[in-house]
Amino acid sequence: MNIILLDPGEVIDQSVLLGGRRADHIVKILRAQPGDIVKIGILNGKIGYGTIKELNRTPPRSVRLQLDLRHDPPGKPRIDLILALPRPIMLKRIVHQLASLGIGRLYLINAAKVEKSFWEASILDQDNLRQHLLAGLEQAVDTRLPEVSLHRGFRPFVENLLPQLAARYDRMLVAHPGDADHLRSVFHPGPGNVLLAVGPEGGWNDFEVRSLAEAGFTPVSLGARILRVETAVIVLHAMISLVQEAAGEPPTGCRPAESNGR
Amino acid sequence: MNIILLDPGEVIDQSVLLGGRRADHIVKILRAQPGDIVKIGILNGKIGYGTIKELNRTPPRSVRLQLDLRHDPPGKPRIDLILALPRPIMLKRIVHQLASLGIGRLYLINAAKVEKSFWEASILDQDNLRQHLLAGLEQAVDTRLPEVSLHRGFRPFVENLLPQLAARYDRMLVAHPGDADHLRSVFHPGPGNVLLAVGPEGGWNDFEVRSLAEAGFTPVSLGARILRVETAVIVLHAMISLVQEAAGEPPTGCRPAESNGR
Repeated sequence: MNIILLDPGEVIDQSVLLGGRRADHIVKILRAQPGDIVKIGILNGKIGYGTIKELNRTPPRSVRLQLDLRHDPPGKPRIDLILALPRPIMLKRIVHQLASLGIGRLYLINAAKVEKSFWEASILDQDNLRQHLLAGLEQAVDTRLPEVSLHRGFRPFVENLLPQLAARYDRMLVAHPGDADHLRSVFHPGPGNVLLAVGPEGGWNDFEVRSLAEAGFTPVSLGARILRVETAVIVLHAMISLVQEAAGEPPTGCRPAESNGR
Repeated sequence: MNIILLDPGEVIDQSVLLGGRRADHIVKILRAQPGDIVKIGILNGKIGYGTIKELNRTPPRSVRLQLDLRHDPPGKPRIDLILALPRPIMLKRIVHQLASLGIGRLYLINAAKVEKSFWEASILDQDNLRQHLLAGLEQAVDTRLPEVSLHRGFRPFVENLLPQLAARYDRMLVAHPGDADHLRSVFHPGPGNVLLAVGPEGGWNDFEVRSLAEAGFTPVSLGARILRVETAVIVLHAMISLVQEAAGEPPTGCRPAESNGR
């Protein structure tokens, strides 16, 4: 926990009273004393510091903090992800890591090769998902909570929802190992919002790739290697981020060949 | 298991007799029949196909294959990694994922914030490490087994071994969250071998960063976010690979500003 996150509603008069997991962390892990300062963030809001005013070391532990929150969190993520629902243990790790890396929205959707039982997993309860997302933000020192939505039908998602979403994105990419061109040759430096679609273990089927391509997605590969979904998601996020950032602040030796009108 | 890997010594007259885990996979997972073809690779060698000649379905299962191996594996990795020994459960996942992503050599070293008990973990037995590396290669359809070496002293590694290794690398980078410049601003497109150093949870201490900098490493960061070691390793590998590949095959719209003399 590199930052302690608060709901906006918990703050009263620039002060907060913590119990439970967060008080335990301050008392047992940080071994803090009254007067000590800890890093604090408001969910979807500012980052700053809290000064410990009162501290009760015996369970049920509690800590009262005076807040000074004036810094913006890391920049707003410009990557959203459509992910064919992975197996629960993998989804936990992916959700944590995506929250750490920064993602705006995660659409968990069905696909032919998604096992039906995955939809019954307890990790999909909103409270559980939120705990894993918060752990990722607490790791990365971010406050922007990704939005997660569940879509149990592939066709309704692609045919009804995707056309409304498409206008939000400058680029839409579907990861498709094999014949597709490598990400580096289709994804050029430039600003904008990216919607990335990653399939299940075993991949999208032909109908699914065709549907996404018809909806405006460009197929991209990462070369000959077949990666686990959890690895591929991070690799794609890292590569897309690097290219997005390179566009915002061109590194020496690499600049867009064409003006993008800005 | 997207490919079945053989030791060179197992092959006699372009034929191999498999038992154990690999025979189980062919019989139970692939449900193969005599005459079927499966993907085969020789460790550190070629990739191709095996035709099933004989198959014993009852344990102890066995499968005899006739081999046709004529394709090269994916390109030789141009990234090696120095990694402060992580906790065992994280090391398992990192080793698997690095083998999948492609790495030449992994140097597991000590650092001030590495817990001593990590050095006693069973994952560090060569046989165990090899199983996790093989699983990563089997996932990615690669045959190049990364070399792994253990270095229980930070100073002997940096002072005695590193000066001999340095000549093999065109660029040496040390991940150091915080003040260091972002990877994108210090790592420019270009060919060459990269040696990357990633610290423990909690980071390198000042002495360690200074020692690596004096040995020729450039400190790089990934921005304000603090990532878990297992996430940071994959993100850095992905970004460095993208830039290395971009140098080999410049994407439209991004080319090196300076000639590199090739």
